[in-house]
Amino acid sequence: MKELYFGVDIGGTTVKIGCFDNEGNMLHKYEIVTRKDEGGKFIIPDIISSVKEYTISTGESEDAIKGIGVGVPGPVIEDRIVLNCVNLGWGVIDVAKEVKALLDVEVKVGNDANMAALGEMFKGGGMGADNVVMITLGTGVGGGVIIDGKILNGKNGAAGEIGHMPVAYDEPDKCTCGKKGCLEQMASATGIVKQTKRILATTDKKSVLKGKEAFTAKDVFDAAHIGDEVAVMAVERLGFYLGTALAHVACTIDPEVFVIGGGVSKAGDILTDSVEKVYKEQAFNPSKGTKITLATLGNDAGMYGAVKLVL
Amino acid sequence: MKELYFGVDIGGTTVKIGCFDNEGNMLHKYEIVTRKDEGGKFIIPDIISSVKEYTISTGESEDAIKGIGVGVPGPVIEDRIVLNCVNLGWGVIDVAKEVKALLDVEVKVGNDANMAALGEMFKGGGMGADNVVMITLGTGVGGGVIIDGKILNGKNGAAGEIGHMPVAYDEPDKCTCGKKGCLEQMASATGIVKQTKRILATTDKKSVLKGKEAFTAKDVFDAAHIGDEVAVMAVERLGFYLGTALAHVACTIDPEVFVIGGGVSKAGDILTDSVEKVYKEQAFNPSKGTKITLATLGNDAGMYGAVKLVL
Repeated sequence: MKELYFGVDIGGTTVKIGCFDNEGNMLHKYEIVTRKDEGGKFIIPDIISSVKEYTISTGESEDAIKGIGVGVPGPVIEDRIVLNCVNLGWGVIDVAKEVKALLDVEVKVGNDANMAALGEMFKGGGMGADNVVMITLGTGVGGGVIIDGKILNGKNGAAGEIGHMPVAYDEPDKCTCGKKGCLEQMASATGIVKQTKRILATTDKKSVLKGKEAFTAKDVFDAAHIGDEVAVMAVERLGFYLGTALAHVACTIDPEVFVIGGGVSKAGDILTDSVEKVYKEQAFNPSKGTKITLATLGNDAGMYGAVKLVL
Repeated sequence: MKELYFGVDIGGTTVKIGCFDNEGNMLHKYEIVTRKDEGGKFIIPDIISSVKEYTISTGESEDAIKGIGVGVPGPVIEDRIVLNCVNLGWGVIDVAKEVKALLDVEVKVGNDANMAALGEMFKGGGMGADNVVMITLGTGVGGGVIIDGKILNGKNGAAGEIGHMPVAYDEPDKCTCGKKGCLEQMASATGIVKQTKRILATTDKKSVLKGKEAFTAKDVFDAAHIGDEVAVMAVERLGFYLGTALAHVACTIDPEVFVIGGGVSKAGDILTDSVEKVYKEQAFNPSKGTKITLATLGNDAGMYGAVKLVL
């Protein structure tokens, strides 16, 4: 009989479900809709029915299912209890207990950003390392810290919140968190666009971005690729703040590797090069050689991390 | 028969030796000279003779000695091997092996800054917490990070090197490490004096420090105590950079408590107040309440931390 393990990544729109063997190789992945009505009470039953159905469709019995790891978009304690997951309509829920009531296997639960970090450590950009810091550059800037192979949650569940490091002392606007000058304001997709607009407003330099009503972080990187001076300045500004923030992290925990993921990380080398240049200048000597690498699992990272919890 | 444990803190001038019971209560402390001649080869034999002599002087036999923890001013790996301890004239030495050759008990070795952090967690300002960050403000700025009760060393032994966080973007001078703008340049005893002199040179404000050839960090705090405007500005500048650095640490590992020690910490509340004011503004919401407290063990912290290794 086969042994099957599932890594589940619950998002606000869809639930990503991965089926893995006992070494964490992905055998199959699929998605189901996240039914958020009635306080999200269908989400867990939907997942479990689907996992059972899938298993039976492969010719195995339910007994083949040995463990389920679940990532959720909210704070998690004790590897099982979710605290107020607004996105899903959940209050405080013991997810492990609810899953076990439907299918009696090992169940562990974690925060989705942390699961992505764990996934990248397990099978992605941080593979082979035990001490990994993941930075996710998307609409916001998230992060996850792994020490000795384990997610660090912190006293208040705020470990790895690198996006809220106060790095830009002269930023006049407020971050979504209420402070001013957070890394997120400089390095998120929306932050990059905003900072580029600021540069455009204060420079006489020509730019392909000038006069455009709306453009994206991708447009900024594309323009920088072809040598657009303003876009290059914008990427350098991003590199300054992100490289400096990574130096702060290194002075605190001195990890083996930094993994950069999220939508913005699709920019690739132009992003890591600009970050690495500043990092090497700003990091304390012993940590200057620490690798800065791109995430490789994309949207699958959360499933890999979740299944790692139960392997 | 009593059980005795020793915590040893090797410094460049003296070795501090503490004798403890099995619960970590200090029974006695004393110092011996650090003999650095001939590559420091007498240091360990001197310590062991002294520990044996002391034990016998209390009416116990050598068998009462159950463990020795040793703190050294240099990088340590595997709880026993010291890598190039310039201050003592040591190259790479397996301290645990050398001690055991003279006295066959449990021996563990750690870096002195980390031992101070561990000591403060064990019996000082961080007592009762498992996740502690210690910042030592002296001639330089050192630190130690404790996660789940254990010292975090980091990939390159540089975890807790908070003094080299690049926080002062416009600092024109170089730090001893070769970079510019390290926290150490703003918050060490020498840094505080230097920054105060800069303010004096650029302000018309009266100050009791004006015209003085030489003054100390203590003089700056004393002047700030009596409302000297320039000194108050200097303390606020220190508070800005140190408070911001602690916010960076909190965004990374979200500890339970920050403990501030070292000579500069004798300034007391005026120091912690200025740091805490900035920290509360700059820290991410969930971590804003994290305690910032003064070290309480003074020069004994290293002995408490060292003995904790073997208890």
